[in-house]
This record gives sequence, structure tokens and C-alpha cells, in this order.
Amino acid sequence: MKDYFPDISTITYEGNNSKNPYSFKYYKADKKIGSKTMHEHLKFALAYWHTLTGKGVDPFGADTMIRPWDNLADPMDKARARVDASFELMQKLGIRYFCLHDRDIAPEAATLKETNRNLDILVELIGKQMKATGIKLLWGTANMFLNSRYLHGAATSCNADVFAYAGAQVKKAMEITKELGGANYVFWGGREGYETLLNTDMDFELDNQARLLRMAIDYAKEIGFTGQFLIEPKPKEPTKHQYDFDVASVMVFLRKYGLDKDFKINIESNHATLAGHTFQHELCLARINNMLGSIDANQGDPLLGWDTDQYPTDVYNATLAMYEVLKNGGLHSGGINFDAKPRRASFEPSDLFLCFIAGMDTYAKGLEAAYKLLNNGELEDFIRERYSSYSSGIGKDIVEGKAGLKELEEYALQHDRIINNSGRQELLETIVNRYIL
Amino acid sequence: MKDYFPDISTITYEGNNSKNPYSFKYYKADKKIGSKTMHEHLKFALAYWHTLTGKGVDPFGADTMIRPWDNLADPMDKARARVDASFELMQKLGIRYFCLHDRDIAPEAATLKETNRNLDILVELIGKQMKATGIKLLWGTANMFLNSRYLHGAATSCNADVFAYAGAQVKKAMEITKELGGANYVFWGGREGYETLLNTDMDFELDNQARLLRMAIDYAKEIGFTGQFLIEPKPKEPTKHQYDFDVASVMVFLRKYGLDKDFKINIESNHATLAGHTFQHELCLARINNMLGSIDANQGDPLLGWDTDQYPTDVYNATLAMYEVLKNGGLHSGGINFDAKPRRASFEPSDLFLCFIAGMDTYAKGLEAAYKLLNNGELEDFIRERYSSYSSGIGKDIVEGKAGLKELEEYALQHDRIINNSGRQELLETIVNRYIL
Amino acid sequence: MKDYFPDISTITYEGNNSKNPYSFKYYKADKKIGSKTMHEHLKFALAYWHTLTGKGVDPFGADTMIRPWDNLADPMDKARARVDASFELMQKLGIRYFCLHDRDIAPEAATLKETNRNLDILVELIGKQMKATGIKLLWGTANMFLNSRYLHGAATSCNADVFAYAGAQVKKAMEITKELGGANYVFWGGREGYETLLNTDMDFELDNQARLLRMAIDYAKEIGFTGQFLIEPKPKEPTKHQYDFDVASVMVFLRKYGLDKDFKINIESNHATLAGHTFQHELCLARINNMLGSIDANQGDPLLGWDTDQYPTDVYNATLAMYEVLKNGGLHSGGINFDAKPRRASFEPSDLFLCFIAGMDTYAKGLEAAYKLLNNGELEDFIRERYSSYSSGIGKDIVEGKAGLKELEEYALQHDRIINNSGRQELLETIVNRYIL
Amino acid sequence: MKDYFPDISTITYEGNNSKNPYSFKYYKADKKIGSKTMHEHLKFALAYWHTLTGKGVDPFGADTMIRPWDNLADPMDKARARVDASFELMQKLGIRYFCLHDRDIAPEAATLKETNRNLDILVELIGKQMKATGIKLLWGTANMFLNSRYLHGAATSCNADVFAYAGAQVKKAMEITKELGGANYVFWGGREGYETLLNTDMDFELDNQARLLRMAIDYAKEIGFTGQFLIEPKPKEPTKHQYDFDVASVMVFLRKYGLDKDFKINIESNHATLAGHTFQHELCLARINNMLGSIDANQGDPLLGWDTDQYPTDVYNATLAMYEVLKNGGLHSGGINFDAKPRRASFEPSDLFLCFIAGMDTYAKGLEAAYKLLNNGELEDFIRERYSSYSSGIGKDIVEGKAGLKELEEYALQHDRIINNSGRQELLETIVNRYIL
Repeated sequence: MKDYFPDISTITYEGNNSKNPYSFKYYKADKKIGSKTMHEHLKFALAYWHTLTGKGVDPFGADTMIRPWDNLADPMDKARARVDASFELMQKLGIRYFCLHDRDIAPEAATLKETNRNLDILVELIGKQMKATGIKLLWGTANMFLNSRYLHGAATSCNADVFAYAGAQVKKAMEITKELGGANYVFWGGREGYETLLNTDMDFELDNQARLLRMAIDYAKEIGFTGQFLIEPKPKEPTKHQYDFDVASVMVFLRKYGLDKDFKINIESNHATLAGHTFQHELCLARINNMLGSIDANQGDPLLGWDTDQYPTDVYNATLAMYEVLKNGGLHSGGINFDAKPRRASFEPSDLFLCFIAGMDTYAKGLEAAYKLLNNGELEDFIRERYSSYSSGIGKDIVEGKAGLKELEEYALQHDRIINNSGRQELLETIVNRYIL
Repeated sequence: MKDYFPDISTITYEGNNSKNPYSFKYYKADKKIGSKTMHEHLKFALAYWHTLTGKGVDPFGADTMIRPWDNLADPMDKARARVDASFELMQKLGIRYFCLHDRDIAPEAATLKETNRNLDILVELIGKQMKATGIKLLWGTANMFLNSRYLHGAATSCNADVFAYAGAQVKKAMEITKELGGANYVFWGGREGYETLLNTDMDFELDNQARLLRMAIDYAKEIGFTGQFLIEPKPKEPTKHQYDFDVASVMVFLRKYGLDKDFKINIESNHATLAGHTFQHELCLARINNMLGSIDANQGDPLLGWDTDQYPTDVYNATLAMYEVLKNGGLHSGGINFDAKPRRASFEPSDLFLCFIAGMDTYAKGLEAAYKLLNNGELEDFIRERYSSYSSGIGKDIVEGKAGLKELEEYALQHDRIINNSGRQELLETIVNRYIL
Repeated sequence: MKDYFPDISTITYEGNNSKNPYSFKYYKADKKIGSKTMHEHLKFALAYWHTLTGKGVDPFGADTMIRPWDNLADPMDKARARVDASFELMQKLGIRYFCLHDRDIAPEAATLKETNRNLDILVELIGKQMKATGIKLLWGTANMFLNSRYLHGAATSCNADVFAYAGAQVKKAMEITKELGGANYVFWGGREGYETLLNTDMDFELDNQARLLRMAIDYAKEIGFTGQFLIEPKPKEPTKHQYDFDVASVMVFLRKYGLDKDFKINIESNHATLAGHTFQHELCLARINNMLGSIDANQGDPLLGWDTDQYPTDVYNATLAMYEVLKNGGLHSGGINFDAKPRRASFEPSDLFLCFIAGMDTYAKGLEAAYKLLNNGELEDFIRERYSSYSSGIGKDIVEGKAGLKELEEYALQHDRIINNSGRQELLETIVNRYIL
Repeated sequence: MKDYFPDISTITYEGNNSKNPYSFKYYKADKKIGSKTMHEHLKFALAYWHTLTGKGVDPFGADTMIRPWDNLADPMDKARARVDASFELMQKLGIRYFCLHDRDIAPEAATLKETNRNLDILVELIGKQMKATGIKLLWGTANMFLNSRYLHGAATSCNADVFAYAGAQVKKAMEITKELGGANYVFWGGREGYETLLNTDMDFELDNQARLLRMAIDYAKEIGFTGQFLIEPKPKEPTKHQYDFDVASVMVFLRKYGLDKDFKINIESNHATLAGHTFQHELCLARINNMLGSIDANQGDPLLGWDTDQYPTDVYNATLAMYEVLKNGGLHSGGINFDAKPRRASFEPSDLFLCFIAGMDTYAKGLEAAYKLLNNGELEDFIRERYSSYSSGIGKDIVEGKAGLKELEEYALQHDRIINNSGRQELLETIVNRYIL
């Protein structure tokens, strides 16, 4: 097997004082944080697309990424080389999971039949590497947005042939996910939305989106795929308006069509902020509805209006995310997938390592801070005290359904001089700082 | 009764060529648009708060509005004068509905008991004017955001005494809405949200929000209030994050707590855009879920990040809104409430008339354009044709549930060279222009 | 010469009642608006890049555009075919100007020398077509953003070899602009900015940006190129922060380096809104500083945070833009370039016609409305009256420099009860509606 | 003198391990950072308005702040009490500077003459406290936005009487700033902008804005005020568009009117982000133009579109800000003014202390991190190396003006295979993390 990163050896933990860029400053895989090790808490995954096939294009610029495997001319040779490169990367970084779309691993051919044959070849190869290394598939999915056939949508296309093609692609992608022991299967509806309402039947399109998901559930049962289904929300980009706008939109869609028992949500940081929410908000909303499934870890630029998919380096964001994850009792079948790409100007192969180190250290530090914060209970105690008026008296009656509007009025007429306490936001922010800095 | 606008007489239709600012250019109340008159289609309502009590403050500026009734020193005298002024305004403008919060019409007093007594006095006065003029109450609501007691929320306050007070206020507001024959009762949760998740138990707060709504439903049954309950979404402002973020958030909340049969949604244009949606999107999403209840008509500034509540003058926005309303078969118990305020620098009493004329003409023109557009069917025909592949063959099988992933794959393997048709967005936009210009 | 759009004949004016999509509803080239014809006022230009080479990619999707000339395999054959197609388009649409980057018309070759040779071949071909048709070059420019060599900037690259290459490209692009009789030469600094300040010497980069412009001015003198130099601002995208953020940023840059006499500004609608300004604001700011040079006509989506470059269909925006153009006494050497692309789903060749028709009609209608609005003087009269206090008394003293703070204090102590008049924004908006609808 | 915060004693440094909320975790006033102490580097200032007169209103909510001095009925008594409270606060917090508007310290009376008399009384009182405590005035300014007379602007009002009144106010505010030994005088043009271009003569308004500034310069000379003049940019809010949009807008305005030698810029973090820039960008742009005068320290919420003026708690932002300040050689006559207000729900008097502690600790930590970062040179060395190609060869020729386009072309023809190096953004972000965490 060719060595694609010959100058870089296995990355190890050296601590915060090390100036060696090729070392972890905070991530120590086997360090115990509570009853679990860091790597058990974090379950980092490599995103096959950005890492292996991303080229560094932007809306005004051509490829920049230098990737040794891209020198190969034959698409299948290239695909095979990427497998080797990806496992080398994961092993050197100590990453134990990866995620993939069908089209990431094998090139589309002239016919669907051949395309599927390509897939089979690569799946076999990947399966061997997985066996050899112990690396696992966190989730699989089908790419139903890149090809021009999906320009009006996949399940929500106005063209029934496109729906059929999408169905065929989902079927195969589920099969290979099962084949590779994938723990989850994700739907991201990048083309499930509209460009303009002037030509769109939203009602019909949403029905169709539900139809495809139902078929997927049925087929999973048929083939015995027991992984968790996940939906990944994003409000816009590529389409002007995507149906899976945010966690709330996904939940109402699932409830409407009776699909909410079959799905959880895969939440991406940058998608949350594009929807006008903090990452923590989306994680929390999913958590309290028992819908938090997995995380796509990255960060956006708050001053840019598109999905920048940057490697996460903001420890505040990572700490608050891990706080929600810990309160969720972990991510269960999910993990932390770096759905991030090196900046277009970070185009050297070595940048791939620097990027993952950046992201892994950021989440490791976030985990440590979040764990201590939760364990010491400074926030939780404050919150418990803050809502304590609901533990007795009229508050208890409200919670237990013993009071109606008449009882409330009666009470309020006698208690209309209300005393509130400060919300202490600034103090709480400094407490978070104490755990991070 | 004092005449507050002695220089302005009843506003009449003079057509688009008139340069008289105090005339309608497009709104002709009794003009038939299809089977209904303009005023039946539009059911314009005056928002009591902005119109009668709004003062023109902004975050950096004091009152500017010159309102003759504000010269009165005694709060109750002022409140009575506002009633007269409001009915004079509505009669001169030909507006047949109005909307109010409890605190708009009567001042808060030292105790809740006295406050309620103030309310009763004003309700009686308003009732008389309604009887005399035939003007109706579109909806009533309780102001549970202005007073400092609500700084942590109303139903979602961490303080049970505040919940109780809110309940008492809702009870009374429902009673006066019933008393005045109000067709709807609205909940806008301006304080139902959070400033920071660091001190917030979102799960508990949402439960409490549902508790208050359930109590309201129960009490409505008890007193025989049969008006429609409405929730008005807004994503943020005043709080950092409001639970009723948008139509989707409201729907998922209602479904979760089993309240979706009891509520419809009151959609405001400026709130839609603050949430990252077009007004049409929110109307359409509510419509296809049979949740479109009423409209708060205004417009925001797309380059400003706060709720500017401007009088609507953009005919594109009004046309697309009326298109959805017409497809909804009208607004039923709802109407078009101008939740808008004169610009701070439009501070003269006469500006109130110019503002309403602007808004009413804009929606009248929008109604006319939308009606023709819908009736001529240029968009509808295009859409019907666009989705026609679902009327037969594999498309029909998908819709009828006769195809699963295996059937789709089988089909797709034989139909993998897909032909799509142009979405024609630019053409469709010029068609809309033809109906507006 | 091959006919690339055989099914579409010359587009003619048929008026607003025509349902023929392939006709103008408002644009009548020879109609007199004041002393000039519509086509003289508007000077529409075709943007070679979007129209001839745009493929319909987006950040998540591959090519969609069906372009007959793209079937040709050889890049130079394709380039030649595009020339024919472009002139066919312009002639059938009655467009008399076009704009180009060097790389739009001829493919980049293995060496700069060969690339320049390719350019010469195409320039000759284009020159012949121009002569044959009378169609003119509105402006030329160099594409210094697409190639990966520009990933750190062109004139502002940290790599001096890149600066040199950019200089060479500007030299050649100026030469071909001169050769083709181009009326203007544009600089758009899509890579002149930064991704992160952590690796950037902004001071040095701005100096270098000025150095390149000075070299261009010197070389223009040397070769006798007398066209107008233009800078086109854009705040971000592709880079995180571009130095030519908006009109103000461009002006301060030019003044700092003594370049303000040599440049005017090319203002794009979508770039204005991305910078947080209305299009009219940017046009007005440039106009009052005698810096308004030319227009890139398009529109963005106010809810999307990236450059959507849509064909303009919003008549409000076009009317206010033309209002500024008319107040500027026209655009002089500039024109109205449709820097717009068909939506990705408007991928058929016929959509190109429908798009230009949409844009041309929108600006024709905007011109008509703006001309009447300005000519009737309703806004201008209001404004004149509004500032009339500066024509006499203390106002006149202020304007003429006769009053200082002491005189103002003396006056104010005696005139501290100030009367203001309403700004009448809502009325003025309805007046604009009267001219548009 | 009454003690307004009897339960809180002088705040001292206790270090990061202390859980005492009323202690500094990072700010140790006399700790040496390089050659200066922390307090010399930071020169923290209290903003009189938010701290002493802010009431906690928001667009939908009434006063919340509990302020002991607000119980006093007489406005002048209240004003005197605020002086005592402010000095108590500053002394207990170890804050050595403050900033004020004229109207913060003394109430507006029935006439300008009386208002000025009120001011004189308070200035005398403040002067005595300053003498007694050694606390200094960082800057003074005039509030020309709150009163309704300024609804159309101050210097840019359409009403000459308003201009005169503004002039009188500036005169007096400069006098009291001089009287109190103020080091700077600030202009923030919150009303200098427009609501709609439909009623605005932007050209004339900008001329008038310059006229007022010139009068101020002249008057400063006349009375011997030698403090630094500062302009504070803000893009919008309260007006739709403010002329002093950002640093670039201010600079081009000053240059146009020949005022750039007389002014520097006071940059606020939250204003920077509202304008679409990072705080660091604005600081850097001002620094490289020798225009960085002073800082208004706070933070906004990246997901909210208005000025939230939060106390700074994000150490990233503070570190990058202090990095620019250190590269500027400090702020000279300027300082770090907390233009921040407690959240509306942080309404207790004690929150004022917790807020300042939060802000001071954040900037102290930022100073330490920035100092080490700059001193160790990790970023500076990277940047120096990155631009090294300009130190010799063609790069040197470019910088020294020895190369023109012809020389560049000649060079490029022979050097057209360009090698770039990675920009290493992710690595640089982890380096910053190493200094912060």
C-alpha cells in the first residue's frame, strides 16, 4: 500500500506547551473523563467527501487542493487510492470512524448498473481495510444533490423519474451501509426545497419527501438494517429554501407523517447558525425531544451568509455543544463527524493533518470544560434554584394541573406585587470562562 | 364626542391619477373582485397599540408622535379619548375591524383588581361605539411583555407568581374579547423564549407554555367563547430566541402537546423575514397544513435586523400574500391587521391617515393582481404541467404507494437517462410583473 | 455562421398585453424618453461570462446549462463558437454592448505566451463581428480570481510572482480592450482581500493594490488607451473580506493613494446589498462624489447571504436606480451590464432569451417610471421645501460659513422651541407606487 | 456621601480558582505586562449613560433596572446622587476613567439656558469628586439623538434651527469636557443619516456634517481645548443608514472635507459587526491609517441584528483587539470604555459589579494572551516569511516602483509556473488557542 503522507507520522499527545504543530495539545485518546475515555465520548469521524474528494473550488475559483491520489487518471484507480489515503490518515490521527456518501467512494458511470458495480468494488476494498484496522463506519448516505438530474430536487423533484432514481440510490446506499456495518443512515436534503414558490407545489413535494422516507423504513426492515435513521437539517444553500430548515422543521415534518419514531437528527453547527440559531439551541431542542442523534462538527463565519464548513477552533462553541451531549447521556449510535474542509488556501496535504488536529483538540478541550462544568454543577444548581417556585404552592399546582385560569386569577389578585430575581447572564458567562480558560 | 382629526374628512376612492394624498388610489371598498367585494376579501383591521398608544420612541430616541389625546393628564381620560379617536379614524378610513391588547385600552393601576376595573369601564365604552358604528373586534389579546414582571417570560417565566399573573391576565382578556364579540384570540409570546441557555430549562418552559394554552382552551369552553385561537410566531426581539420562532416551530409545539386542533396561526410579514423566510413561504406552509388563521400586514427593511413594522407599500409582497389567501379560500375568521407604525419621523396626526391609505391601497392592488393571476391560471397551469409525471406510470405508483425501493430501482435501472425541463423562474417573475404593473 | 438559436427570431416590442414570452412588454428601443431613446438611456450590455461560459454549477451541484457550443471538444473551437452565439444573441435581443474578461473569450493554455496568442485569435474574430454588427465593447477586464495561482490574491498576493503575473494579465487585457474600442476598463478585486487577519499584512497589501493600479494608469497613457477606469466594489465572496467592500471603501482607498481622479465606480446591485446598503444608496453616494461610472444590473435575494446574480425583475429597484442615473445626467461612458445568470434550473438555451427580456423590460419600465417621477418633480419639490430653512437666516449663515459655535449658541438660546415637519416617508412611497403601477 | 452599594466592598484580584463572584480572576491592576501595568495598558472607563441612567427598556418592555438613586423625585437630586454612585462604583472596581454625554449628567430643562445651568452645577460636583479620587474623564460628548428635536438629524437635520441647537450643545459639551480635563471629545452621529432616500439630500447633509465639525475644531482652538477629536462609526440603528457607517466611511468623509488630520476614530466592537466587519478588521484598518483613537468595548450577538451592547466576555475577541492595540503602541489619549449595559434581566444593583468584573477580566486575559502572542512572534514571524518574496528580485522592484506592466509581463512570461504556499489558517487559529487557553 502506497504511503500518501510519508513525512507525517502518527500524531501523539504532547500537551499545550508543545510547539510541534503535528501533535495534540488537548486530545489524549485514552484519558478518562468520568467513566469514559476521551475517544469514547467523542467518537470522531472523518468525512470522506471533504477530506478525500474536496478540491478547494469556490464560486469564483478553480481547484487548489494538492492531493497525491488525484494524479491518477483512471477514476477507479483514483477511488482505490483514496481508500488507502483515508485509512492512512485515520490511523495516523487515531480517528476510529468515518462517514460517506455513495458517490464519494466510487465514480458515477455511464449507467446506474455500472455505477452500482463500481460501488461494490470499492465497498469490498473499504470493508477489508475496516477489518484490518478496526475503523468503523459511523454513517452512510446517498449523494442526491450533485448530479444535474437533481436540479429540481430528489424525492421532491417535479419529475417522477428523478424520484425513482433517488429511490434506487437510497436502496443501494442503505445496502452498502449495512454491508459495512454502518451505525446510522443519514438523509440530508440539499435539493429538497425550492428556488421559487412561483413554480412549486410545496404540499405535494412534502408528501413525496415523506413517501421516500417511508419506503426507506420499509426496506430497512426487509433487509434487516437496524442502524439509526437520521435527518440533517439545513435552511438554505444550495436551494433558496430547504424543507429541513432546522430542528423544528424536521420535527414537525416527521410528526405530520408519523415518522418521528423512526428518525433522529444529525445537527451541524454551521447549519444551525445559518438558520438563525446557536448550535447549542439546536442540540438542546433535539435533546429535550429525544431526537439528538449525531453531530456534524464544524464552524461557520458569523459574518458570512453561506456554509463555510470550517474546522472547529472555537472552544466556546465546542464546550457548549459537549455540555448538551453530556446531558444527553452521550450520542449513542452517533458521533462527532468533522463535516469540515480545509480553507481553500490551506491546500497542502499536510494541512489535512493540521485541520484534524485543530478540530480534535478543540472538541477535546470542550469536552473537558463541559464535563467539569456539569460535574461541579455551577450552572445546574443555579437553574434548579431559579425554577424552585414551581416545587410548591401555586407553582406546584400549575405543574400538576391542579390550577386553571380561575385559580390563577384568584391567586394573582392576592399576589400582584411580584418579586423577580436577576438572571445573572454576565456572571454565568464568566463562570463558563473559568472552566474554559 | 370630540373630533380629533377635524381637517380630514372621510377618505374616498379617486383612482390612480389623483394627486390628492387623502384619497384611495386602488382601494374601492365595494368593488367586486370575483364574488366578494374588496372589503370582504381584505377585512382590514386597525391595530390599537401602534395607532393609539404608539409614541415614536426608538432605542436611542424619545417620543415624537403628536397625538391630540395625549394632552390629557388623567390616564383614564386619555384612554377614553383614544376610543373616540380610534373610531373616528376607522370611520373616516372605512376600516371595519380592530385588534387590541388589554393594556392598550386601559391603564394598569396599582393592583390587578383596579386594573381589571379600568378595563371594564373601557370595554363598556368601546362596546357602545361598536354598536353605534358596526365596527367589529377582529381579535383581542393580553399584553404580557411590557411590564417588568415579565422580564423572564410570562407562561415561561421561572417565577410561578408570574405564570399565575399571566393566567389571570389571559382570563380577563378572553372575557373582554368575548364581551366585545371578538372573532379570534391571539397569543404572541414576545417574552416566551430565552436570553441565554446558561440559565434556562427549555424543556420545562415549553411544558409551561403548553399548560397555559390548555387552561385557556378549558376556560373558553367554560365561558362559551367560540372565537378562533391564534398563535403569532416571531423568531427574536425582544428576547434573543423566542419559542414561537416561525410557523414550523409553532406547529411542532402544538402537535407535541396535542394542541394543533385548537389553534391556527397569525402570520406577520416582518416576523417571517426576521426568521429567514419570505412572507409567502410562511403563509403557504400554514395554508397547506390548514393552519392559516389571520395576517399581520406590514413590511420590514431587508437590510435591518429588527422589526421595523412599516406600513406595507411593496405591491409584490402584498400580491403574493393575497395569492396565498385566495388559495386558502380567504382568511375565514381572520383578517388583515395593520400591525404597523408610522415612521418615527412621520409624527403628525395626518400621517396616520396617509399610512393607512398606503397600506390599504397596497393590499387592494395586491388583491386585484393576485385575483387575476390566479383566475387566469398562468402559474397554476404551469405548476400542474410541471408535476404531470406523477399522474401516470411510475409517478402514479409512487403517489399511490404501489412502489417501494425495489420497484424504483428496477425502474431506474431502465430509465437512468433523465430529461428535466426548465423551471422558468425568470419567465414566471415577468408574468407576475405583467399582473402587477 | 451556425445559428445557435434557430427557433427564436428577433425579439420585438409587443406591449404589456402580449402573452408571448419572446417579446418585450416595456422595452421599445427607439421610444423617446425625454430627449434620448430608451436604448441611449439604457445602453444594455451582455456579460460574456455568465451568458457564454456559465455552466450552472453551485457549491453542491454540477453543470446544468445546455449550451449547444459546449459540444465542441477543442477549447479554441468552443471559444469561436461562443463568439458566434453571443453575437446572434445580442442581435436577436437588440443588445448593443457587451463586457468581457480576458479568460471568457479565450482558454488559458500551458504558458502565458500561448494564452496570449489564443487571446489574439479571438480578439480578431470578435473585432470582425463588432464591425459587421455595430455592437460595441462596454468594458474589458482581466480575470484574476479563477485560477488557483490567485488563491492568496492577485495584486495583494503574498507572492511577488503572482503580482507579476497579474500585471502581465492586466497589460494584455488593457491592450485588447483598446483594440476592441472598449469604453471602459474594470477592476473587480474578487481575491483582493483576506481570509484571516492572522496571516495578513493589510497595510502592505493595500499598498500593492495601489501599485498595480498606478502601473495600469501609466501604461494606459503609454499606449493611448483613453477609456475610463472603473473599480467594482464587493464586500465578500469569494474572500471573507474584500478591500473594495463598498463605494466608501473604494473612495477612501483611491483618495489615500491619489488615484481618485483616474477612476470611477462600477456598481452592482447585488454587491450593494451584500454590503448592507441599498443599490440606490451606493449609486447616490457615487453620484454626489462624481464617481458613478457604470452599472452591473442584477438582483440578489434579500434572505440569502451570497451573490445570487439574478436577472433583475424587481421594478422598484430598477426605478430607484434609474432615478439616480437620470440625476447623474446618464452614465456617460458607462452602461447597464447584466451581470446576471439564469437560475441553475433555467438551463435551456431559450431561458437565455427569457432572462434578458426579463431584465431589459424591468429596466425599461424603471426608466419610464423614474423619468416621469423626476420630471413631474413630486419628490424633488418635497426635498427642496424640506431643506428651505437653509436658504435664509441662520441656515444661510451656516451654509455660507458665517456662523460658528458661538453664533449658533446665541441663536439657539433664543430659538430653543423647535418645530419640525413630518418626513412623510409613507406618502412618498405611495407616490413612487403611483409612478410604477 | 450616601453609600449606594453597602454590601459590596472593593473588588480585588483572587485569581482563576476563586469562586467568589465579587473578585477579579484575571485583572490585577498593577501587574506588569511588558513595561506597563495592566491598568496603564487597559485604561478602563465607565460609560456614564448605560451605568447610571440606563433603565433596562427594550422595544417591547418597560424599565427593569433597580437603581437606588432613582427613588429621588427631583431630577437634580437624582443627578447628584448618580455622581456619588458612579464614583463609588469606580472606586470599588478600581476604574480610573469615565465617559459622559452632556445629558447623562444633568437633566434637560425647559430652556437651553436652564439646561446649561444644570450642567454647570453637576460639572462642579463631578470636578470635586475627580479631584478627590484621581479619577479622570476619558472623553465627553453631546447627546444629539435622544430628544425629539433631532428626529431628522442634528448637523444633518433638514431644519436649520436644529443645526443651531446642535452647535450650541457641542459648544457647551466641549467646554465642560475641557473643564473636566477630558482627554478626548467624541462625535457619534446616531441621527446623522437617513430613514429614506426619498426625502433626503445626502450631498447637502454631508456638507453640513462637515460644517459642524469644522466649527468644533475652530472653537477648540479658540478655547484652547487640546483633547483629541474622535468619530465613532455605526452603520445603522437608530437610523436606517448612518453616514459614519464604518471606519472606511468615516475616513473618506474626513478626507473629502480635509478633516482627517483633526480626527481619530473611536471603534466599538458591536458597531463593527453590525457593519459586516470583525472588530479586529476595524481596529486594524484604523491602525494602519494612524486613525485608531479609542475603543468602546462590548460585544454583540452574532445572530441578532441590533446593537445589544453586551459586556464583553468572549476572550477571543478581546485578545485580537488587544493585539491590534499593542501593535498600535497603545491607545495614546484613548482608552477602553465599556459601552455596555447589563442584560435587561440582570437588573439588580449587584449586577453592575458583576458586569464590570466580567468585562475587565475578559480584557485582562485578552491583554495577557495578546502580549505573549505578539512577544513570542509566532504570528509575526509567519507573516514576515509569507511576504518575503517582496524583499528581493521582482518583488523588490514592484515595491520600489522600478517595475511597470511591461517589466512584469516580461518577467511573467518567463515565470508562469507559480508555486504558492499554504496560508495555514487552521494552524494559526490553534496557535491563538494555545495562548488563550
